[in-house]
Amino acid sequence: MNDTASLDLAKQLIAQASVTPDDKNCQQILAERLQNIGFTIEEMHFGNTKNIWARRGSSAPLLCFAGHTDVVPPGPLAQWQSPPFEPAEREGRLFGRGAADMKTAIACFVTACERFVAAHPNHTGSIALLITSDEEGDALDGTTKVVDALKARGGQIDYCIVGEPTAEKVLGDTIKNGRRGSLSGNLTVKGRQGHIAYPHLAANPIHIFAPALAELAAEKWDNGNEYFPPTGFQVSNINGGTGAANVIPGTLNVQFNFRFSTESTEAGLKQRVHAVLDKHGVDYDLEWAYSGRPFLTEAGRLTDTARRAIAAVCGVEAELSTGGGTSDGRFIKAVAAELIELGFVNATIHQSNENVLLEDISKLSSVYEHMMAELL
Amino acid sequence: MNDTASLDLAKQLIAQASVTPDDKNCQQILAERLQNIGFTIEEMHFGNTKNIWARRGSSAPLLCFAGHTDVVPPGPLAQWQSPPFEPAEREGRLFGRGAADMKTAIACFVTACERFVAAHPNHTGSIALLITSDEEGDALDGTTKVVDALKARGGQIDYCIVGEPTAEKVLGDTIKNGRRGSLSGNLTVKGRQGHIAYPHLAANPIHIFAPALAELAAEKWDNGNEYFPPTGFQVSNINGGTGAANVIPGTLNVQFNFRFSTESTEAGLKQRVHAVLDKHGVDYDLEWAYSGRPFLTEAGRLTDTARRAIAAVCGVEAELSTGGGTSDGRFIKAVAAELIELGFVNATIHQSNENVLLEDISKLSSVYEHMMAELL
Repeated sequence: MNDTASLDLAKQLIAQASVTPDDKNCQQILAERLQNIGFTIEEMHFGNTKNIWARRGSSAPLLCFAGHTDVVPPGPLAQWQSPPFEPAEREGRLFGRGAADMKTAIACFVTACERFVAAHPNHTGSIALLITSDEEGDALDGTTKVVDALKARGGQIDYCIVGEPTAEKVLGDTIKNGRRGSLSGNLTVKGRQGHIAYPHLAANPIHIFAPALAELAAEKWDNGNEYFPPTGFQVSNINGGTGAANVIPGTLNVQFNFRFSTESTEAGLKQRVHAVLDKHGVDYDLEWAYSGRPFLTEAGRLTDTARRAIAAVCGVEAELSTGGGTSDGRFIKAVAAELIELGFVNATIHQSNENVLLEDISKLSSVYEHMMAELL
Repeated sequence: MNDTASLDLAKQLIAQASVTPDDKNCQQILAERLQNIGFTIEEMHFGNTKNIWARRGSSAPLLCFAGHTDVVPPGPLAQWQSPPFEPAEREGRLFGRGAADMKTAIACFVTACERFVAAHPNHTGSIALLITSDEEGDALDGTTKVVDALKARGGQIDYCIVGEPTAEKVLGDTIKNGRRGSLSGNLTVKGRQGHIAYPHLAANPIHIFAPALAELAAEKWDNGNEYFPPTGFQVSNINGGTGAANVIPGTLNVQFNFRFSTESTEAGLKQRVHAVLDKHGVDYDLEWAYSGRPFLTEAGRLTDTARRAIAAVCGVEAELSTGGGTSDGRFIKAVAAELIELGFVNATIHQSNENVLLEDISKLSSVYEHMMAELL
């Protein structure tokens, strides 16, 4: 298949310098293409973030593609061999900011829709696209708000494909069927400052915290499960001391983070941290930041369909993974029965000279089309 | 007694802006006074540090007074009610940098010698003064070098009085008969930096060090003894982390300090710290700094003499103490059978408006004279 349609649309999108949260004309371009094949477009703008919810059909099952038109900043331009917002083909690759993360995947899904609708104008079920321009930023007014709106009107997604770049070495090698949760703490241990020669007049927060730290670092939080490694706790920053060698500091600051499996919960982890601190008599302030709940789609209809499509198009056996950071999948899973992430090779994302293989473009569009055909 | 001699000499010395290590004319002034009453003056200059060793008599026992003519910088002049190097009397006090620490004490001892020698020109034993101009600085070319020289020629001091300001509330309330040792460590714990979402690819030095820190903080190093509280271990500074919340740092820096009693030794404490680190498999660099060995003069002839003199002159019952920081006593004890520190009230030392009570000047000189009379 010579899929110039996907490549052309990808180039159109890359040419829009849509650094978060400025969407430029990306969503307008997509909306017009989708309207042409019978999609209804809902603009769902929140704050200065643009989002669209596009849907074709009203019956179940609903297959939704989710993606973002915003990109991270290009970084030093001198490190780019061609300007980041001027899509360029060379060495069998398409270069440009957003090529892999994830404008080209959106283009692939739109053209897959075009071919599928042309072949099956009266397909069963519905197809939707949830497109945001605030995935790389704070992600406060993007997908999470759209999901809230969908939830409020009883919207339910049967199958969701998030087009994030999930492949590690070759297209199709990895499907993400979940992500770990992320929970962070900013801890201030309170002591009493004093001269190091008079420790009885001071209370050293480093010493007070030491046994609690040892216990937290040694704790086994859970054993993980078939899909997740055990929950991990890591201290990223610890700072105490005035700089002077003869002063016992008054406070100690500690930042830590959990990456946690579906075997643990936000509330459970918090409770256990507080219990350790309290057990050791630590006087402290602790601010929590819950940046992503864990989610999981167990192997089933959606993952099987994706693996079959990948095998047919790419000749690759896909592995399920829950590794890596967070994505908007954490929000959508709340209204999606099954959700996976499936997109291009992620080797160059967020870097200069971001690119995808030209041959992968038609393949990914074809994988998406195969999945539509099987699920609807 | 109306001791204008001590006051006048103190003012002469304070008028010399002898901030470490610049002695100005202090030692010259003292040398002339002491030569006039039969002392032999040896200049023992090392590097840019001036020291004198003045001795009267050649027989035992040898009573030595030790002191320093250097002072710490005055700090912001605006905070002084009168210029720091212009001695001023007001409110029954003598103000000036070095008034308490410790030019006035030197003046008191010199005038005590003058009175004692006038009354006992053929006293038994010997009197010496060891005066340095590098006590407040690095203390590398001061008392320690003079002591080395004395030791090399077999010099032995029977009784030594260091004129440091030891009184806490009223003159004579405290005699220091020893000082704790001070041993510091600068520890770098080595791990491997990495992304917090991939801890299996990193090694968190904060976690690696945690159980060792807990053990070091909980350790009982010794039980102290009649004169010393138990040896204490304190971490003054701990710093690890890149500042980023998603990065496991590659190294952790920890500064710690022991204030230790005569029940522990430098070598023993070092060995125990290394043993704890090694037991927990910590990979580390550790730089040691040994800034002061502990010393002790048990209650005996010298302390009894001092307490009797204080009781007679001040009507105060002196307590023995080994608290506080370090002094040149740590060096002199190597050649002194008995050593105490005894001087003015230390409430204003190293501060602006440093001062001593005028009435304490004649008292301290009298205490020193009483001790000479009893010991020689």
